[in-house]
Amino acid sequence: MTRPLILVTNDDGVVAPGIRVLVEIASELGDVVVVAPDSPQSGQGHAITIHEPLRLKKVNLFPPGVEAWECSGTPVDCVKLAKHVVLKGRNIDLCVSGINHGSNASINIIYSGTMSAAMEASVEHIKSIGFSLDDFSFDADFGPARPWVKEVMKYALENPFEAGNLLNVNIPKLPAGRIRGLRICRQADARWVEKFVEGRDPHGQPYYWLTGEFVNGDPGQDTDVWALENGYISVVPSMHDLTNYKAMPLLKALESYRLTEAALAT
Amino acid sequence: MTRPLILVTNDDGVVAPGIRVLVEIASELGDVVVVAPDSPQSGQGHAITIHEPLRLKKVNLFPPGVEAWECSGTPVDCVKLAKHVVLKGRNIDLCVSGINHGSNASINIIYSGTMSAAMEASVEHIKSIGFSLDDFSFDADFGPARPWVKEVMKYALENPFEAGNLLNVNIPKLPAGRIRGLRICRQADARWVEKFVEGRDPHGQPYYWLTGEFVNGDPGQDTDVWALENGYISVVPSMHDLTNYKAMPLLKALESYRLTEAALAT
Repeated sequence: MTRPLILVTNDDGVVAPGIRVLVEIASELGDVVVVAPDSPQSGQGHAITIHEPLRLKKVNLFPPGVEAWECSGTPVDCVKLAKHVVLKGRNIDLCVSGINHGSNASINIIYSGTMSAAMEASVEHIKSIGFSLDDFSFDADFGPARPWVKEVMKYALENPFEAGNLLNVNIPKLPAGRIRGLRICRQADARWVEKFVEGRDPHGQPYYWLTGEFVNGDPGQDTDVWALENGYISVVPSMHDLTNYKAMPLLKALESYRLTEAALAT
Repeated sequence: MTRPLILVTNDDGVVAPGIRVLVEIASELGDVVVVAPDSPQSGQGHAITIHEPLRLKKVNLFPPGVEAWECSGTPVDCVKLAKHVVLKGRNIDLCVSGINHGSNASINIIYSGTMSAAMEASVEHIKSIGFSLDDFSFDADFGPARPWVKEVMKYALENPFEAGNLLNVNIPKLPAGRIRGLRICRQADARWVEKFVEGRDPHGQPYYWLTGEFVNGDPGQDTDVWALENGYISVVPSMHDLTNYKAMPLLKALESYRLTEAALAT
């Protein structure tokens, strides 16, 4: 039996500890190819590189048998290059992104390079999972997450696309044995309250540096933020259809607008 | 009566012709403040700048009375800086982004800096509209779009947030009088089929340059792509809740997973 082909990427860069953990787990389940950014790409969202050429370089950072490349582009570029250049159209059974150093729950999904890479794969009808640990530090302990990450990957490999097309998985920062389980959640309606730190550079010019605080005003107990705060791993099935179907009937009046002669003349 | 405050941004940069048209239309309806990128930012998606300071510079590019700033960051950075630094928390009645040179219908919404800027405003509960003309050229003719763009902006200003929170408006490339009307649509399930142009740089090193073809396999007549191809302006109400609610029950089995003693020990 051929082993499944698993593509691994991330947004913290190919040398981040989180991707090493993911590669090790993926290697237990299938053949692994890594294509990841050569530098940190946090907050890159779904950015792609159009106006510049991209570079790919083979690296030797992982256990034997793992083919790995670093790429000069964004996480989404990595997935596109993996599919079309590195794997030249070979069938990818699963794409996993992360493990991100820091939560991508709730609104963070739209800013996250980790989740955008996973979404890009799902647009290509590849089952896809983004994993994030709720701990920003470089030396975060990914140990307690390991068996859970493996279980979710196994689930996605064994079930049809519809049941595992794009999953946003966030893991609480808890010691081994303290994680209470997996919860299927919706994305919490939380947001960042920004602040800009204002300063002057060494040449006297003003600058603004983004910072902020994550604020959850969503009281639901079915959200990813609730799950994380209560010791569960959140699993949010996600998608790239951003249509707000509920708002469609509210807008119908717009369809009756006709240009006046005056407007036509301008 | 105070005039509404309208924030204008884009992703093609503050000197692009499309934003000038949008500023002119917005000025007929309210007081206008422009905060836009100092360089083209197409394909930036929802990228934000975390690891570098941002710059803001006042510019004098628009009709008298229009306060305008160029920003060194991404379109999403522009909206954040506009709200927190330029307007210092003043109430923004409407944010308009564009007019983009090129369509942002269907899957383009996830790559688009134009739409990401608009989405960022909507996350902040500001009514928000991204406008795009289905014409990539620098000297695209925005004339036929003008009365329609104004009508959609008026609609958003006059109606409650729920009916105009985030609109993705795409305008076909047609001469004046040939646009058939506005259509409320869903996002078509189309995608890009990528190709990478491979080459060697002057130093003999390989490079890969992204290109591709937009392919619509969605047969629906209720989609934005259908509307554009049939002479209508597409209006897709959009949102930042990416939860795939239909997939949630399919995943419930994951919740019953428990760690074995062996897994706990690793």
